[in-house]
Amino acid sequence: MRPMLVSDYNEGAAPEILEAFQRTNMIQEPGYGADQFTLSAKEKIKAACDCPQAAVTFLYGGTQTNQMVIDALLKPYEGVLAVESGHINTHEAGAIEYTGHKVLALPEHGGKMDPDELAAYLATFYADANHEHMVAPGMVYITHPSESGTLYTREEMTAIADICHQYDIPLYLDGARLGYGLAAAPEVDLPFIAKTVDAFYIGGTKVGALFGEAVVFTKGNEPSHFMTRVKQHGGLLAKGRTLGVQFDTLFTDGLYFRLGQHAVDMGMKIRDILAEAGCRFFIDSNTNQQFIIIENEKMEPLNERIGYDFWEAYDADHTVIRFCASWATTEETLLALKEALAEVM
Amino acid sequence: MRPMLVSDYNEGAAPEILEAFQRTNMIQEPGYGADQFTLSAKEKIKAACDCPQAAVTFLYGGTQTNQMVIDALLKPYEGVLAVESGHINTHEAGAIEYTGHKVLALPEHGGKMDPDELAAYLATFYADANHEHMVAPGMVYITHPSESGTLYTREEMTAIADICHQYDIPLYLDGARLGYGLAAAPEVDLPFIAKTVDAFYIGGTKVGALFGEAVVFTKGNEPSHFMTRVKQHGGLLAKGRTLGVQFDTLFTDGLYFRLGQHAVDMGMKIRDILAEAGCRFFIDSNTNQQFIIIENEKMEPLNERIGYDFWEAYDADHTVIRFCASWATTEETLLALKEALAEVM
Amino acid sequence: MRPMLVSDYNEGAAPEILEAFQRTNMIQEPGYGADQFTLSAKEKIKAACDCPQAAVTFLYGGTQTNQMVIDALLKPYEGVLAVESGHINTHEAGAIEYTGHKVLALPEHGGKMDPDELAAYLATFYADANHEHMVAPGMVYITHPSESGTLYTREEMTAIADICHQYDIPLYLDGARLGYGLAAAPEVDLPFIAKTVDAFYIGGTKVGALFGEAVVFTKGNEPSHFMTRVKQHGGLLAKGRTLGVQFDTLFTDGLYFRLGQHAVDMGMKIRDILAEAGCRFFIDSNTNQQFIIIENEKMEPLNERIGYDFWEAYDADHTVIRFCASWATTEETLLALKEALAEVM
Amino acid sequence: MRPMLVSDYNEGAAPEILEAFQRTNMIQEPGYGADQFTLSAKEKIKAACDCPQAAVTFLYGGTQTNQMVIDALLKPYEGVLAVESGHINTHEAGAIEYTGHKVLALPEHGGKMDPDELAAYLATFYADANHEHMVAPGMVYITHPSESGTLYTREEMTAIADICHQYDIPLYLDGARLGYGLAAAPEVDLPFIAKTVDAFYIGGTKVGALFGEAVVFTKGNEPSHFMTRVKQHGGLLAKGRTLGVQFDTLFTDGLYFRLGQHAVDMGMKIRDILAEAGCRFFIDSNTNQQFIIIENEKMEPLNERIGYDFWEAYDADHTVIRFCASWATTEETLLALKEALAEVM
Repeated sequence: MRPMLVSDYNEGAAPEILEAFQRTNMIQEPGYGADQFTLSAKEKIKAACDCPQAAVTFLYGGTQTNQMVIDALLKPYEGVLAVESGHINTHEAGAIEYTGHKVLALPEHGGKMDPDELAAYLATFYADANHEHMVAPGMVYITHPSESGTLYTREEMTAIADICHQYDIPLYLDGARLGYGLAAAPEVDLPFIAKTVDAFYIGGTKVGALFGEAVVFTKGNEPSHFMTRVKQHGGLLAKGRTLGVQFDTLFTDGLYFRLGQHAVDMGMKIRDILAEAGCRFFIDSNTNQQFIIIENEKMEPLNERIGYDFWEAYDADHTVIRFCASWATTEETLLALKEALAEVM
Repeated sequence: MRPMLVSDYNEGAAPEILEAFQRTNMIQEPGYGADQFTLSAKEKIKAACDCPQAAVTFLYGGTQTNQMVIDALLKPYEGVLAVESGHINTHEAGAIEYTGHKVLALPEHGGKMDPDELAAYLATFYADANHEHMVAPGMVYITHPSESGTLYTREEMTAIADICHQYDIPLYLDGARLGYGLAAAPEVDLPFIAKTVDAFYIGGTKVGALFGEAVVFTKGNEPSHFMTRVKQHGGLLAKGRTLGVQFDTLFTDGLYFRLGQHAVDMGMKIRDILAEAGCRFFIDSNTNQQFIIIENEKMEPLNERIGYDFWEAYDADHTVIRFCASWATTEETLLALKEALAEVM
Repeated sequence: MRPMLVSDYNEGAAPEILEAFQRTNMIQEPGYGADQFTLSAKEKIKAACDCPQAAVTFLYGGTQTNQMVIDALLKPYEGVLAVESGHINTHEAGAIEYTGHKVLALPEHGGKMDPDELAAYLATFYADANHEHMVAPGMVYITHPSESGTLYTREEMTAIADICHQYDIPLYLDGARLGYGLAAAPEVDLPFIAKTVDAFYIGGTKVGALFGEAVVFTKGNEPSHFMTRVKQHGGLLAKGRTLGVQFDTLFTDGLYFRLGQHAVDMGMKIRDILAEAGCRFFIDSNTNQQFIIIENEKMEPLNERIGYDFWEAYDADHTVIRFCASWATTEETLLALKEALAEVM
Repeated sequence: MRPMLVSDYNEGAAPEILEAFQRTNMIQEPGYGADQFTLSAKEKIKAACDCPQAAVTFLYGGTQTNQMVIDALLKPYEGVLAVESGHINTHEAGAIEYTGHKVLALPEHGGKMDPDELAAYLATFYADANHEHMVAPGMVYITHPSESGTLYTREEMTAIADICHQYDIPLYLDGARLGYGLAAAPEVDLPFIAKTVDAFYIGGTKVGALFGEAVVFTKGNEPSHFMTRVKQHGGLLAKGRTLGVQFDTLFTDGLYFRLGQHAVDMGMKIRDILAEAGCRFFIDSNTNQQFIIIENEKMEPLNERIGYDFWEAYDADHTVIRFCASWATTEETLLALKEALAEVM
């Protein structure tokens, strides 16, 4: 089969994780997250975040995590503010609305939210004489890196957080690809994020785990009976150890950060290869995701040589496609990309 | 730590599964269940069920599976009939009601549903002049083995199915521990189940997988857009391969059945050990779960020596406890049980 | 058409209410409950309850009110305790489950809840080691009068309230027929109820209004943004004045109490007529509802002469039927009942 | 109190309706819509729509109707397409999302949907390789008259319907103010609407009823067990007669149309008065709603003289306000408007 740069979840897991499964397999542990591996992983994440008061919970996937956290943090009559291109607004099959909450969409700027537009939305809402008939904005959702591979600066993230706290609503950061963001922009590190936002998750599925995301409530604000609510949503794993073992491994000896660094290094090489091949970039990204605009007739020939992801239609004759590196991307695959571009472009 | 017979999910996974993860790890595959392992596993399960028209989907846990299947099979104004002790009615934190559906409870008989009581309920419902103001019974849920370790005979399961089909409502079988039922009562095999019920799941989490359940719709009745609905519920794994690899392994060379047989063999040995120690049984079970009634003051001393599961209060002075064997139970653990009983009872 | 004693909602509204609609019709008022009539009605109800801190909201029907109040008072992972025969558990088409909450059913005793059984349920729940996997009992629902026409004494209602408050969960009273209860058992009056329970509603639909129920939160415990939540449930009337005018009229010059007294007086006459005719009573009721057990073959002839309500099957040959008086029941109708019984029984 | 042109629900009901309540008050009828008035009203509406196969149901309010119809017509994984300014997307407190469905917003053009933009949205959705991860567009919602007082032509409505039917999704028309639309643009009459759309409602609350809306399913497409579902949503009135009496009256001797005509006539007079006073119009409307842009400092003085509705902020110094005529608007009120404008503008 031809090599793929379709997504960051085309392979299994980091070898260290499979080794940990082997090593711990026959140790008897209680279920539902009371096992020693889960407890250890929580402590390591709290330390990595420099946030002793954090409450950490492991869930198994990104959509489930967004659904669970947003539903638990919102009051029943509130909605969540996100940019139009936010994952919860586009590619989660209406999982937020399924829980009864509206996604309130703001314009997107390279996948990011503009603090001034956020402030304006909130001010306008409360100035509206009829706002008791409207969906109250009850929290803010951002992705870092964004769906377009862009990153917030410290200043931008702080500005959004300040507005949230002025209106007394939480800021939640979707870190499905956080490992890649930490590598690409080290100044927005885990302690800064833990200090700035009210809840976030550290993505495992896309950064070397078989599956799993680590939710962090940073301000003593874990929703009450959170485990029961996860169970009620159908999201509680009997063998919680499977999540504990993975995150314990990821946060031992800096594995999570090394996996992220590898993918970003490969992403930069992809960017160079694309630039050398004269490709037209859709957006400037310094993370593991790279987007180009391609003539429609070249899509099929290219796809036969190297796997990529359809992103969106650009115009009648062009399409945006994505190349996605991961913790598992090899030099052979990059070479295949180079050759494919040479033949097709 | 002292050995445990608390549950069938205290260890990791069957070694064959971990080996399969290792072997397939770096093979690139598409996400969301389109990988080769998932496709292969589906074919093997259809063959094992002798049901070519079956539609198989892999989900990650029992409560999620029950929630997903029941919500997808019921019409919005319908409820699901189950016995009072049914898992969905007791220990799923209201996951069915969370999707908007009532659990309509019938009496339980050793964890099982009585066909006559089911027939009477349905007849009474439709005879009620006000039934348009009531929750319509839209499907029937049974567990096999039941929560009490008991099993339906072919005749009993057929009787329930016949009533369901008379009222044109589906029968759904929760097989969280199906591997143990298949070993304890081989005449109720997969082809019989596939022929008799309209949907069921083959439990992986409790029968040797790290996690995962295989849902089977047997009559060309998979709900439309089922993948989208799973995503909407937050239940779709990006790395669907993790489920595919596990079930492909479980249904290769009869592994699933061997794991089940081991647990039942160990369950029978536990029953013998308990009987020899003069324990009073709560229910007669020939599966991997064994229940006894114990004096309250003996609970703590016993628990220090061997892990068991609290089941329910029996009376002011006695409690029902459960010993649970699994695919992973060792002779050493049985010896520990024997010694513990000798010291405490 | 033959006269009916089918229910207490077979006629329109008390004449005083229609007159009030006429009188106020062209007065311009703001919508959504900000009108002068609604404000006046709220004050009158607070005064009648001797409960200045009460928050009063008008909704349009009983099922909507139960759904709204219960959903707003429960936390998302909680269920509501009610007796098996409670209206929310039987004849509201699953409206509570529709909002995601389980109805936790206790045995019924003539339609009433036994305080000891309630206490036992709560104690058992919290003693269960697995209760984080179960639906937490988050409030208690009672009906007064009950669906069987029975009434709680002051002592019984206080006992239930004390248990609720010991567990820090609210007690909610469904007063769909409260006007008839107040007439039949005057010691359980509005001030006593307001002091004892945490929320209740004063039924209008069945006690002389065209429609409408008055919800009273008695302890400064109105859920936040309750109006928005009612709107979100689809329950907010643009012309809130229609509810205000009706309850303002009902609570002027004691009309609500007089309507209730008339129905109970007529109910007692019905009881006498039934007794004289040798009917077998199903339950002893001193409110406007009277239940008898009748031979199946007499049902049709009786129904041709006087309308009654099917209640439930009693045995293979007998059925329980209900005669229901109301604020509108006339002496002519009672005479028709008497004659019908004479001919049929 | 100063006169108001705030909304079309500031008064009670058309006198004919109150008279009908008086006339029918003591006639005994069964509940829940089985009464003679409801049956008669349904027939009259089917006749007025020239649509014998229509199924008519009476609900009590607009948000409830939208919530009920949309939830019942959509499959669980689908969303509803509406323009951004559509009532369901702005002023219903998230009632659609409460039922689990996303509102998919298209641009608005004077409150209306552009058929080409609708077609483009649907084509793009199905061309997207990832659309199984997205919310499927399952129906289209339009308002006629729109929230901005504008109207669809026959051609526009037909174009939208044709696109819907090409994609096999229903078109639903929110007719909260339909009576005013019928008067302003008589060519889009009830038979045309019934022939063109799949479901719509004839607004009562804003067109002379105390409350109530008539839902019409036009194509034999009433959702199964619709009454039970209405009950489940908390929306079923015990005294269904209250709705039947009103709509029976509205559709006797053309009352509904006369009420609509009066309001439109008054709306046109308001438009003339505003134009004469030199007001700047926000949008060109020929229905009962008129919108102007006003300097912020004039709002308070004007509001002291004549009631109007805040619509939205226009810029830092100006606001859009609405004057709304109704079936009940008097010449005295128009005179008051004229005088108020003369003093303030």
